[in-house]
Amino acid sequence: MPDSNSNILRLRRLGIDTHTENIVFMRADCQVCRSEGFTANTRVSVNHGSHHIIATLNVITSDIIQPGEAVLSEEGFRHLHAQEGDLITVTHLRPILSFSEVRAKMFGRKFNEEAIQRIIADITQGLYSKIEIAAFVTVCSGDNLGLDEVIYLTRAMIESGSRLQWKEKMVVDKHCVGGLPGNRTTPIVVPILAAAGLTIPKTSSRAITSPAGTADVIETMTPVDLTLEQIKEVVKKEGGCMAWGGAVKLSPVDDIIISVEKALDVDSAGQMIASVLSKKAAAGSTHTVIDIPVGQTAKVRSKEEAFLLEYYFRAVGLAIGMEVEVLITDGTQPVGKGIGPALEALDVLSVLRNEAAAPTDLRDRAVQLAGLTLEVAGLAPKGAGFEKAMGILQSGAALEKFYRICAAQGGFQEPVASPLQHEVVAMSSGVVRSIDNRKLAKVAKLAGAPKSPGAGIRFQAPLGRYVKKGELLFTIYSESQGELSYALNYLHSSGHIVELVSP
Amino acid sequence: MPDSNSNILRLRRLGIDTHTENIVFMRADCQVCRSEGFTANTRVSVNHGSHHIIATLNVITSDIIQPGEAVLSEEGFRHLHAQEGDLITVTHLRPILSFSEVRAKMFGRKFNEEAIQRIIADITQGLYSKIEIAAFVTVCSGDNLGLDEVIYLTRAMIESGSRLQWKEKMVVDKHCVGGLPGNRTTPIVVPILAAAGLTIPKTSSRAITSPAGTADVIETMTPVDLTLEQIKEVVKKEGGCMAWGGAVKLSPVDDIIISVEKALDVDSAGQMIASVLSKKAAAGSTHTVIDIPVGQTAKVRSKEEAFLLEYYFRAVGLAIGMEVEVLITDGTQPVGKGIGPALEALDVLSVLRNEAAAPTDLRDRAVQLAGLTLEVAGLAPKGAGFEKAMGILQSGAALEKFYRICAAQGGFQEPVASPLQHEVVAMSSGVVRSIDNRKLAKVAKLAGAPKSPGAGIRFQAPLGRYVKKGELLFTIYSESQGELSYALNYLHSSGHIVELVSP
Repeated sequence: MPDSNSNILRLRRLGIDTHTENIVFMRADCQVCRSEGFTANTRVSVNHGSHHIIATLNVITSDIIQPGEAVLSEEGFRHLHAQEGDLITVTHLRPILSFSEVRAKMFGRKFNEEAIQRIIADITQGLYSKIEIAAFVTVCSGDNLGLDEVIYLTRAMIESGSRLQWKEKMVVDKHCVGGLPGNRTTPIVVPILAAAGLTIPKTSSRAITSPAGTADVIETMTPVDLTLEQIKEVVKKEGGCMAWGGAVKLSPVDDIIISVEKALDVDSAGQMIASVLSKKAAAGSTHTVIDIPVGQTAKVRSKEEAFLLEYYFRAVGLAIGMEVEVLITDGTQPVGKGIGPALEALDVLSVLRNEAAAPTDLRDRAVQLAGLTLEVAGLAPKGAGFEKAMGILQSGAALEKFYRICAAQGGFQEPVASPLQHEVVAMSSGVVRSIDNRKLAKVAKLAGAPKSPGAGIRFQAPLGRYVKKGELLFTIYSESQGELSYALNYLHSSGHIVELVSP
Repeated sequence: MPDSNSNILRLRRLGIDTHTENIVFMRADCQVCRSEGFTANTRVSVNHGSHHIIATLNVITSDIIQPGEAVLSEEGFRHLHAQEGDLITVTHLRPILSFSEVRAKMFGRKFNEEAIQRIIADITQGLYSKIEIAAFVTVCSGDNLGLDEVIYLTRAMIESGSRLQWKEKMVVDKHCVGGLPGNRTTPIVVPILAAAGLTIPKTSSRAITSPAGTADVIETMTPVDLTLEQIKEVVKKEGGCMAWGGAVKLSPVDDIIISVEKALDVDSAGQMIASVLSKKAAAGSTHTVIDIPVGQTAKVRSKEEAFLLEYYFRAVGLAIGMEVEVLITDGTQPVGKGIGPALEALDVLSVLRNEAAAPTDLRDRAVQLAGLTLEVAGLAPKGAGFEKAMGILQSGAALEKFYRICAAQGGFQEPVASPLQHEVVAMSSGVVRSIDNRKLAKVAKLAGAPKSPGAGIRFQAPLGRYVKKGELLFTIYSESQGELSYALNYLHSSGHIVELVSP
């Protein structure tokens, strides 16, 4: 029984959703606040049986909760494995010792391996507040991490989660560094390689700062929240899968860090490499092909930067025992026509179905990546991979495999674009000289992507095309008038997205 | 009337205290969430008449609020000038453009003056979330800010708040860089200088990472939450005041930044200089004396570091038109005996009262600083300031002035130490060779300082003293058993605080 001399409280549930952060609500006059000296925003330990969580305290001065009660956010109930009416204790937090390593890094000291292991272990356990994670993300941003630190971070992230084991000696994977709207090759590459007999347990991310992550796109066609067991079954049956990585806790700490990177709209090279390779390693991959699109408005802006990333990817791969091949590709304009989950999925299906109107740029990129992987895997001689991969696509074998993988994952459905549309037309006639991919992505995000899967942009004005005044440049899709207005406001205040010049 | 097709909601008050962060609670099925696409943790704009605030959205799935209602945290009600029952609208946040400058700084670009002005203006307006401020604090930490950037930051912080005007041509001030427990010279220096006829509108901070800030100490004896008008009156009447800077919005952005620095337990040189000098400039000071204690466990650890800080202080002073003198002092051990607000106040009173048991180290430091200021102000020849200041103290004129200032600020009261005490004694006999000030401060903080004004430490074992086994080293004071336990747990796990060696 909660009594007034203990720090025991009875849990109440008010259905408060605070996303990833645990919040505990306690009365200001509660005996625990008084005896322990807790005030609003104190970080506290909430204990229930053998489970403990760290939560931020919100203090309540009204009677919505009774003396002796505490309310947890929904996340808190989940993490604590608790039910309404359960008894908890609330105690002081011990100082998080590993954060002193983050502080030392602010002052220019390098991380050693043990420091990074301790930080990642503490973040995984939920000991860091969001502002502490923000500081960690910031000290790791830019070129603040050396190669050794990226290797430590990668290893620590691999250790933070589950790891898949395969009986096959060779397990392949691919990853695109991103930043290029519409560059959705995964749902084409996976079925080509699986149809060729390779094992490819592909997990993808949701969007960090872009209008769509690969997992968001695939989810408009088939479930991606697979358990580890389901992934194993799908891959055993079909050779490949297309799952969301976050659902299987292959690198759970990555999702925590990414939620802060997303809020800051930052993702740094060192953390990106550790994030990518740790997930590949945890998925059991032995051979990985990385696509790095380069362009003024892509994530990677110069060849030099791409070469440096290539070096880091290969060197970190070596350190963790993985063969990594890098393909540096053209990132000057969007790939395909769609930007946003469903709109990109429509492009993907069009390629897999070998439709005449299918975007050839998306098809050729996917086939190039699949071809290189076939070569790396020894299934095609050097230089012959492209042709072999194209054959698998054009024969319809890739489409059939795609449907079979979707069926194994829970079924296939056609993706659907949002109902509200706004057409953006050329204000004058001219040839498309440049496209600002960053602004384009921003418009798609303000329109609701990826939260609303049908929202985004269908882009119709590739580089070099001559467009007449009044002709369509792109269409914005949105679920709600509010979001469409925000996209249009930004569009009107942001200057050129498509630059036209006299031919 | 809230209707189901608008984004108007009616405010309810549930007395939820979330400290400095605005939180808005809305139903998951609310028309605004649905039409605007809001989900948990979205940052939104809450609008009421001509007032707007940025708030973090918590989504509620129970019936504690009705359709058409929204709940604000208490801070939200205050900032929005709203009452229960008022109608509000909730809309999307426009992107915070200045944060792209913080992002650029992560990638190594320097801030220019306009960038810092925009960032500080946006933080002042409450547009930045805590994690965005954490990123800003982190990119400004260590030696990441150059002299030019510190000057821009100082100017931007001066512009962010009110500024005091005085008819006197010369207005003096003092500041201690801190990190030295018990170094509470302000309430001694101010009355000495005011008694000498100088104008010293002193504002002090509360603790950032230490067990007590000067404002916390003075508050145990007299009110420090003065308005600008009250400060002007007190100074007009008595020549000096001892107020909390945060209450008068002389540099309001500083308090926002400091709350995050406090959570991260970080305060960086550049931000510290900007924080200190912006407050002095805003208070109208023309001449400022800075005390920099140097010692292995003080905030500044080496003479070199102190010299660099001295250079920055003087150069930034020059840029903003302020004469700055620096006094580098011994920071190898705590000053006085008390560590914590009331315990330090007891030392101060003992010095002002010229008691035989008064700590001479605290007295001599205060007199030295007051003396240097008398010299800088031309009230004493070079080298004769110390003697003049000591004369004012020993004559009782400083004590009388202190009481008069307290009376003008709202009255004087005797400070009171906390009731729970624990004595820490020597485990062996020996001479005190070193004292770990950082660990000592940590113990005082875990014991409850500065939140509990009576909590902290009374320290009895200065460097060089011979102590017998079992003799008292220091006493821990605490308001609650919980806090005392945490202090003792840390004490037992943290190794030596006082190092004894055979004589």
